[in-house]
Amino acid sequence: MVHGGDILSYKNLYEGDIIDFSSNINPLGPPKILGNVLNNAFKDVDKYPDIKYRNLRKSISRYLCCSDDEVVVGNGAAEIIDVFIMMFNRIVVFHPSFIEYEKRARVHNKEVLELYLDEDFNIDEALLYKNIKKGDCIILGNPNNPTGKRLEEDRLKNIVEVIEDRDAFLLLDEAFFEFCPFYYDSIKLFRESRNVAVIRAATKFFALPGIRLGYAFTNKTIAQKYYELSLPWSVNTFAEEAGRVIFNETLYIQKTKKYINEQRHYMIENLRRINILRAFDTDCNFILIKLLKGDENKLFDFMIRKGILIRKASTFKGLDKSYIRVAVKDFDSNKYLIECFKEYEKE
Amino acid sequence: MVHGGDILSYKNLYEGDIIDFSSNINPLGPPKILGNVLNNAFKDVDKYPDIKYRNLRKSISRYLCCSDDEVVVGNGAAEIIDVFIMMFNRIVVFHPSFIEYEKRARVHNKEVLELYLDEDFNIDEALLYKNIKKGDCIILGNPNNPTGKRLEEDRLKNIVEVIEDRDAFLLLDEAFFEFCPFYYDSIKLFRESRNVAVIRAATKFFALPGIRLGYAFTNKTIAQKYYELSLPWSVNTFAEEAGRVIFNETLYIQKTKKYINEQRHYMIENLRRINILRAFDTDCNFILIKLLKGDENKLFDFMIRKGILIRKASTFKGLDKSYIRVAVKDFDSNKYLIECFKEYEKE
Repeated sequence: MVHGGDILSYKNLYEGDIIDFSSNINPLGPPKILGNVLNNAFKDVDKYPDIKYRNLRKSISRYLCCSDDEVVVGNGAAEIIDVFIMMFNRIVVFHPSFIEYEKRARVHNKEVLELYLDEDFNIDEALLYKNIKKGDCIILGNPNNPTGKRLEEDRLKNIVEVIEDRDAFLLLDEAFFEFCPFYYDSIKLFRESRNVAVIRAATKFFALPGIRLGYAFTNKTIAQKYYELSLPWSVNTFAEEAGRVIFNETLYIQKTKKYINEQRHYMIENLRRINILRAFDTDCNFILIKLLKGDENKLFDFMIRKGILIRKASTFKGLDKSYIRVAVKDFDSNKYLIECFKEYEKE
Repeated sequence: MVHGGDILSYKNLYEGDIIDFSSNINPLGPPKILGNVLNNAFKDVDKYPDIKYRNLRKSISRYLCCSDDEVVVGNGAAEIIDVFIMMFNRIVVFHPSFIEYEKRARVHNKEVLELYLDEDFNIDEALLYKNIKKGDCIILGNPNNPTGKRLEEDRLKNIVEVIEDRDAFLLLDEAFFEFCPFYYDSIKLFRESRNVAVIRAATKFFALPGIRLGYAFTNKTIAQKYYELSLPWSVNTFAEEAGRVIFNETLYIQKTKKYINEQRHYMIENLRRINILRAFDTDCNFILIKLLKGDENKLFDFMIRKGILIRKASTFKGLDKSYIRVAVKDFDSNKYLIECFKEYEKE
């Protein structure tokens, strides 16, 4: 299993609907208003999307509090990561992190510097500073997938200072930004930098993985370079239309933040009562777990028979078969997961 | 103007709806059944598309009469062209042709061999044979954009034979395939070859440029390589669902073929009665025109004031400002275009 969300591959293992804890999507579903919007968008599928995405970028720039020409859009965050990788000679990653960082760098025949997080899954800044050089692109998940950890504001500021000093580049992947308690906004912090891009996405928070809408803030010179490299019309009409309304759904946004916050606490608290695992701190809507009994395969087989799909984590470099990842979902599903863990403990 | 279909850039030049002759989309619009299908697809936007596109590829392979593992899918034909380009060291193009062939090769820092069609816009086979070598990828539009010409079956067979002999690769871009009168099917001809891929797309014939669905036939070893290089989830849920129904719309397909055939004859016949231009033969749903009076800018300004958007063609290498391209649209629009040309002639 290379990515979460691949329910179709396991459908035959369970009669009935499988609860997908392997992909980290807002359990409240997409904003209700989208039904009508997408219905209307159907009228426009016989036209090309705006090749310059003028209205979409306007809507995103209002949401991010930056200007239109500092916004880039893509076919999910995946395309944005890919296009940024194309711009640089060497890519620096910290394992464990989202597998596509390294994979896309290899696809583009880039040199890859593979560093590892320390044993608490923090970035060893000394290690970073010793290694980076001009022209490098450092990619950091913030919060990081699969660890769930967000960089502290001061540490992030230090990192950016050193990166600017060396004339390297920082690609911050903040696809899970809105799930986090609000401590700081990287875009506000680095608005003036020429060495930073901040990726966000509609995929996770707005529960729209099927629609493929990623976007990022970056300096406008780099944004221009991005559009020279990216494919024409890569964002489809439905994503274009959705992006014009979802960011105005402030009630939905608040409700989701509150709900995820409550459920995250509920899950962490209850998982920590189970003795055969260790649940790591998380800033967002998924939890990395170290199993003290059995391994990812044993638990996977146990859970799939209960109708639960978990994410095995040994495909992340730096983790072994004792790790798994689960999403924070709706209360009933979360409660059921906890119960199943308790059963697994007793077995 | 780098691509057709960019109506938004010219909206302020005309009060009322501009008729878009610059993009080559089926004037009958998308199959009616899609309204319901896409409505249902909305239920699934909170899930990732199937990362392996199992059902979609099954539907396409039935339509193309090949097997599932010989089908690749992409975010429009544009992504498919891009991924194939990544596989090869040198890209060979014949100007004038679709601008993205060369552009994407440059983006990926590939060597590009730029050859030119002869003065009748045919491929000079001797020129091709003299120049290609092992590892080259030759990209040919079939029919070719903007010339509208399709290769004759025997000439194409010869070309493939030489390409196989040299161990080069042929990427046939047949995005306009269904608009052509049926003479031969490249997929049937080259089903056994390891050196050919044939791109098709939902964009043009099924009038779905907004949905972004491209697909191609190729040898299954190359198809595997394609999926190693392409982005995950690059085809969105709406495209995935649409692709499962549109190919069964046989009545729609027949009706469109008949309609375009009639309208193509109507336009060619009437354009040839106008003395200030030369309309080239075409096998599909657009027509390359050489202006004998004025140039693309003069005609563009004249037409936009009439509410018509044409495609200036000087951005295609090998053509100058005396060339333009127009789509074959619905009868009323076509008739209006002819009338406007007559006015332009008198002016």
